[in-house]
Amino acid sequence: MNTIRVAAIQLGVENYKSDLLRAATHIAEAAKVGARLVVLPERFAHWAPDRTIPTMAESVPGPTTAWLADRAREHGVYIVGGSILERAPGQLLPYNTSLLFSPDGTVIARYRKIHLFDALVEGVPHGESNIVAAGDEPVTAATDLCRIGMSICYDLRFPELYRGLATQGADVVVVPAGFTRVTGAAHWEVLLRARAIESQVYVIAACSCGTTAKDRDFFGHSMIVSPWGDVLAVQAEGEGAVIADLDMSDLAAIRARMPVLSHRRWDLRGARLLPV
Amino acid sequence: MNTIRVAAIQLGVENYKSDLLRAATHIAEAAKVGARLVVLPERFAHWAPDRTIPTMAESVPGPTTAWLADRAREHGVYIVGGSILERAPGQLLPYNTSLLFSPDGTVIARYRKIHLFDALVEGVPHGESNIVAAGDEPVTAATDLCRIGMSICYDLRFPELYRGLATQGADVVVVPAGFTRVTGAAHWEVLLRARAIESQVYVIAACSCGTTAKDRDFFGHSMIVSPWGDVLAVQAEGEGAVIADLDMSDLAAIRARMPVLSHRRWDLRGARLLPV
Repeated sequence: MNTIRVAAIQLGVENYKSDLLRAATHIAEAAKVGARLVVLPERFAHWAPDRTIPTMAESVPGPTTAWLADRAREHGVYIVGGSILERAPGQLLPYNTSLLFSPDGTVIARYRKIHLFDALVEGVPHGESNIVAAGDEPVTAATDLCRIGMSICYDLRFPELYRGLATQGADVVVVPAGFTRVTGAAHWEVLLRARAIESQVYVIAACSCGTTAKDRDFFGHSMIVSPWGDVLAVQAEGEGAVIADLDMSDLAAIRARMPVLSHRRWDLRGARLLPV
Repeated sequence: MNTIRVAAIQLGVENYKSDLLRAATHIAEAAKVGARLVVLPERFAHWAPDRTIPTMAESVPGPTTAWLADRAREHGVYIVGGSILERAPGQLLPYNTSLLFSPDGTVIARYRKIHLFDALVEGVPHGESNIVAAGDEPVTAATDLCRIGMSICYDLRFPELYRGLATQGADVVVVPAGFTRVTGAAHWEVLLRARAIESQVYVIAACSCGTTAKDRDFFGHSMIVSPWGDVLAVQAEGEGAVIADLDMSDLAAIRARMPVLSHRRWDLRGARLLPV
């Protein structure tokens, strides 16, 4: 049986130094039980009031990416570095960027969040596009485990991205996130399961937990979902490593029995309003 | 408050005559409590062994559409006639066609199922494309209640269709269906809720129930889902009319607070693999 043990790290938000320290503990914990791919939450060490964003953003490579590369090498695991705020040359706003590190510490994929969270939740405005620039490239990367597709948080509401990642051959899609408690309770599990089912991929979703000084209340509930839509593992509250084994022969069997992706009507693109 | 009372009819499968008779009872029951739009299941009077399909298919207009038009007029309601097998001139295979009747009995929308169910479920092969021709046009229709988008059963696994219907302005999407028990238990509710959430529409899903002579075991669980993903009404087993009130001001508020449809990255179509 061709299985891959993976982990989603659920992490609270305190401050840069302590966030790295606790992340290191949980990465070690996951590696110790055999996880070969470890996924951190969105902006896992980069949550802060909006006004401090410019000073928090860093270049790639930079201090946080160096730290992530060290962790990958130390444990010999793939790491999806949640996301960081990436300062890009000649650009005012940083990207919300997720990096995939191979076990030798190399960055093998860089995904800049495409869909930015501009919404009003329970009267609280979220204006991510005021502080972050949007990416414009869906990203997958081949590894010796499987092909990994990248996404971040609010992307989850855009099924076309996941269909695109599946088209690129993704077997597993990662979702570092910082879902709020309100939208999390209403939409987190149902959308993660739907993405897994309709695009026939494993989904590894790592969400922050707890409350920040800015009164952001994160939903937690990091989970790992099978391509049949089963929740393989979940942790509702508190920090920790959520662990599951992904069975790649199961994935192949599901795709063979119900080939939804090959049933897409590419002939109906464009004029007839069916985009894929 | 601008609300619309609607109904999904859950119906077993016996034979043509008794299916119509029982459907009539449930349509009357829904109209009596004030439903203004009534949705029947997929092929609600047209389930039969594959070999009888050619004799079962009928022209539009034909006997079943005349019957549906009569029911719409009798009760002064909009009816989505689940689906019928539509014989098309000069074509070997019929379409799996859903028709929307206005309260005066006029057909105001005709949708031919785009995605055909060719899959292996628990070792049982389903080869819809052997007996049915695929449609190629997403369909919505304006009514004096709201704009209604059309889909049928297996379409539910194709989020791009629902995004397309929302782009055409649908406020409500109907899903006449005949989900099997196995895939229904695993995927029915989660996909219906995801479609409602991500495309910000009300979803009215009417599924057959019980077992046919051909040993098809239908899942039932007809339900009505809000654009926030809440199940407003559901009936697990047995025949009946599932009733709910759709609040159109709620729909407008959800779209205004989190405008996901306008956040789609149309600029990334095509080459970069993000189709919408």
